[in-house]
Amino acid sequence: MDQRLEKQMAFLLEADKSKLVGRQTYLADGSRKENDAEHSWHLALMCALLAEHAREPIDTARTMAMVLIHDLVEIDAGDTYAYDTAGNASKRERETAAADRIFSLLPEDQAAWMRGLWDEFEEGITAEAKFANTLDKIQPILLNDASGGKSWEEHGVREEQIRKRNLHTPEGSETLWDYADGLIRKNVENGKIKR
Amino acid sequence: MDQRLEKQMAFLLEADKSKLVGRQTYLADGSRKENDAEHSWHLALMCALLAEHAREPIDTARTMAMVLIHDLVEIDAGDTYAYDTAGNASKRERETAAADRIFSLLPEDQAAWMRGLWDEFEEGITAEAKFANTLDKIQPILLNDASGGKSWEEHGVREEQIRKRNLHTPEGSETLWDYADGLIRKNVENGKIKR
Repeated sequence: MDQRLEKQMAFLLEADKSKLVGRQTYLADGSRKENDAEHSWHLALMCALLAEHAREPIDTARTMAMVLIHDLVEIDAGDTYAYDTAGNASKRERETAAADRIFSLLPEDQAAWMRGLWDEFEEGITAEAKFANTLDKIQPILLNDASGGKSWEEHGVREEQIRKRNLHTPEGSETLWDYADGLIRKNVENGKIKR
Repeated sequence: MDQRLEKQMAFLLEADKSKLVGRQTYLADGSRKENDAEHSWHLALMCALLAEHAREPIDTARTMAMVLIHDLVEIDAGDTYAYDTAGNASKRERETAAADRIFSLLPEDQAAWMRGLWDEFEEGITAEAKFANTLDKIQPILLNDASGGKSWEEHGVREEQIRKRNLHTPEGSETLWDYADGLIRKNVENGKIKR
């Protein structure tokens, strides 16, 4: 049996566990919370359709691959809720250990490629990483708004927390940030987000 | 407000419903069945990692976009189980009506692009469509094998049905089909698939 293919398949089965990593964001209809695989699918679709709004031109294929794998580390590290201060303090260390383990399941060249994409996303410096980070931040805002602010209300989130978390979001796309900003304002006005 | 962006966002919120379209395939750990969004994410990841096994060279970005949207029509038409004869007879008509409605939510140029990708997937003629179809067929085989043949057993699936359904699967990748074929043989031997 082809060892390269065996490694690729082992990685793809490991990746399947992303479907079991829960996030705090509700689906648009509010019926349940989404998981990492669904979230990543949504980001990749957004990437295909919204790339024209990127602040700088991006390589769409590379950005799609980046968002598809950006949360794989949560298979080990779990999803850290945006406004969980203690969790976010240890997040980097837990996620780096997870990246070491998970990407190394792949053949060496692909492990280096995927790990590079993940590091690039985390560093947030390239045009692709900035746009991917913008999508990652605005997707939950879209869903939170669509579900009637359910997750914001559950966690008693304040506007200031959202704005602090989104300081860099306009860097990937001012257009998309402006759209999300409008949703935030609306939800502050209607009381779903605390002032 | 930018009408183009409003249309893109309306489509992206409609697409969210893919997360609620259930499939018959269990996750690798057998804990529950997967949905269309998770399945499409898995195919896009497979596309990024397994493109080297395609029979003909493929445009990876286009194939990724294709697999990301290939099941959106099931938001209206539902998932038709592979071995549901009556369901499959009316599938084409139900799915075409769904494509007409869902893709037309997008701005005209993107509606045409996405509808073209979906038609291309359904026709299965281009190298990209053949490879996408191969991924779509082998992903459930990988998961069914990993979950101990749970879905095959539940539905009493026979080897002949699987082989008939996979007549065209080698056209996208002989290597990937050979891998899946090995899993099928193993599961016939251990009785998870009926002879």
